[in-house]
Amino acid sequence: MKRYIYGIDIGGTSIKFGLFDLDFKLIDKWETPTDKTDAGVHIIDDIVTAIETHTPKLDEVLGYGFGVPGPVVKHYIPVCVNLGWKDVDLPAMLKERLNNDNIFVGNDANVACLGEAFIGAGHGRRNVAMITLGTGVGTGIVVDGHILEGHNGSAGEIGHLTVAHDYPIVCNCGKTGCLETVASATGIRNIYNRRKGDHIGHSVLFDTPFPSAKEIFDAAKDGDLLALEVVDEAADYIGYACHVIGITTNPSVIVIGGGVSKAGDFLIRRIQSVYRNLAFKASIDTKIVAATLGNDAGIHGAAELVKIYG
Amino acid sequence: MKRYIYGIDIGGTSIKFGLFDLDFKLIDKWETPTDKTDAGVHIIDDIVTAIETHTPKLDEVLGYGFGVPGPVVKHYIPVCVNLGWKDVDLPAMLKERLNNDNIFVGNDANVACLGEAFIGAGHGRRNVAMITLGTGVGTGIVVDGHILEGHNGSAGEIGHLTVAHDYPIVCNCGKTGCLETVASATGIRNIYNRRKGDHIGHSVLFDTPFPSAKEIFDAAKDGDLLALEVVDEAADYIGYACHVIGITTNPSVIVIGGGVSKAGDFLIRRIQSVYRNLAFKASIDTKIVAATLGNDAGIHGAAELVKIYG
Repeated sequence: MKRYIYGIDIGGTSIKFGLFDLDFKLIDKWETPTDKTDAGVHIIDDIVTAIETHTPKLDEVLGYGFGVPGPVVKHYIPVCVNLGWKDVDLPAMLKERLNNDNIFVGNDANVACLGEAFIGAGHGRRNVAMITLGTGVGTGIVVDGHILEGHNGSAGEIGHLTVAHDYPIVCNCGKTGCLETVASATGIRNIYNRRKGDHIGHSVLFDTPFPSAKEIFDAAKDGDLLALEVVDEAADYIGYACHVIGITTNPSVIVIGGGVSKAGDFLIRRIQSVYRNLAFKASIDTKIVAATLGNDAGIHGAAELVKIYG
Repeated sequence: MKRYIYGIDIGGTSIKFGLFDLDFKLIDKWETPTDKTDAGVHIIDDIVTAIETHTPKLDEVLGYGFGVPGPVVKHYIPVCVNLGWKDVDLPAMLKERLNNDNIFVGNDANVACLGEAFIGAGHGRRNVAMITLGTGVGTGIVVDGHILEGHNGSAGEIGHLTVAHDYPIVCNCGKTGCLETVASATGIRNIYNRRKGDHIGHSVLFDTPFPSAKEIFDAAKDGDLLALEVVDEAADYIGYACHVIGITTNPSVIVIGGGVSKAGDFLIRRIQSVYRNLAFKASIDTKIVAATLGNDAGIHGAAELVKIYG
């Protein structure tokens, strides 16, 4: 008898396992380290072992959903630099080993968006986007309940949207002006480093050699003028990115997640204000809200893949 | 026996009828004026009369697709200012009168994109966007062979993407800085009007009191420096809009249509160049090409609705 669904979020550092009942209620979760040696060939063995150890009766599993940190086109992974993978057909590779036909794969940012859309901040809405502001900037877009993948799996790469037209900082992708260079945790520090020399008067941030994004947000909340300028500039870029998402894909909710989003309402209100000033009237009602699932968004969304495609 | 499919493009000025065979080959096309009096109540009677006159045996029609100039959500028209319509369920209203269950509706810009995607410049590709540069700027986005509608039918409103951050010209939508204010036929003239006062030296455009977009493009092709500056600036905005579409929805082709696109390769090459400089590496191969169906894109795309949803 079918009793379980697995949602598995394969990251570059750890693999997160979520075990759900058939109502998609999370029963158990755990992590194992990601073994990226030998071009990632051990990852699949490790996943199968972890599942077999935890759920000896594989025929009790209805299906498996996976999130992976790279482009995915119709459950196929053309390349995944973060895991060392190339041309990986995960459903085909796992079908016999797990004795299951319901194996589905999505990009991790898209899968996290699916989790927030259906279980988290989206409250079951079918048109939802999510911007994850962490070390980098990831984006997932869910259109009519399905992941927007694009022709080669690169839809929703909003981290590489050019927003800071005159910033010389080079992004990991090789371009300049990307949202990631001014809205990730590093990006917040980039804005601070650019502004600090021109600031007139003192700032509490000058007391710390290299203030973190969190320290900058905390100073802004305490009314530090330089820190407020930094936060307002970052909110301008993030709000503009929400405008771009709103005007192209018209979601009813845009979820802001990741470490930077821990600044909470203080940041969200600023993003909302920028968004409303830019929005076309037909999409001005799009809500901008903080993520609610944290690091569990990926396992929830991966499990949702089984509902959508199973 | 089924022999025909109708693709009907309802515009604010005229209704374009396309009669197709079951292989989607255009057999006949004609237009009738759009009667917008009495909140558009006569439009539906006029359409039924035109169809019955042309195709007396209604049971030979496999299905009907319609493009309408306003937002559409799952074949339902919440409001259509251009036709005077509100809460119009076209399939329900026409089902009995045309004795047919296959009646489908899409937004006109989206339906034109569908036509270019499958029949025109997209050569059958399933992930295609189209920017129509005419009196205004319309955009359609086709994702995995389906129209991207969004939560309230307002996806792909790229005409109202803020691109010209310091332009004071007010758009029809009430905002400033919209792509439409700097990339439509009027937009090209807006850029000219802003630049002409600062231009040093003569320009052939000074010989005409109010040069049209076409005259500006013609002058640029003849090497007029002011005209070239205007075209380059417009191409910067359009290329940036292509970047926005590429990074959010990852199409394999972006089609440029409408009157302004008649400037041809001269404009397209400039847009491609801007796009490639801004593009994220995974979507740098997106092709930017001129539309090929002209005013027929709408009837072709409307007929395609029958293939997709029928």
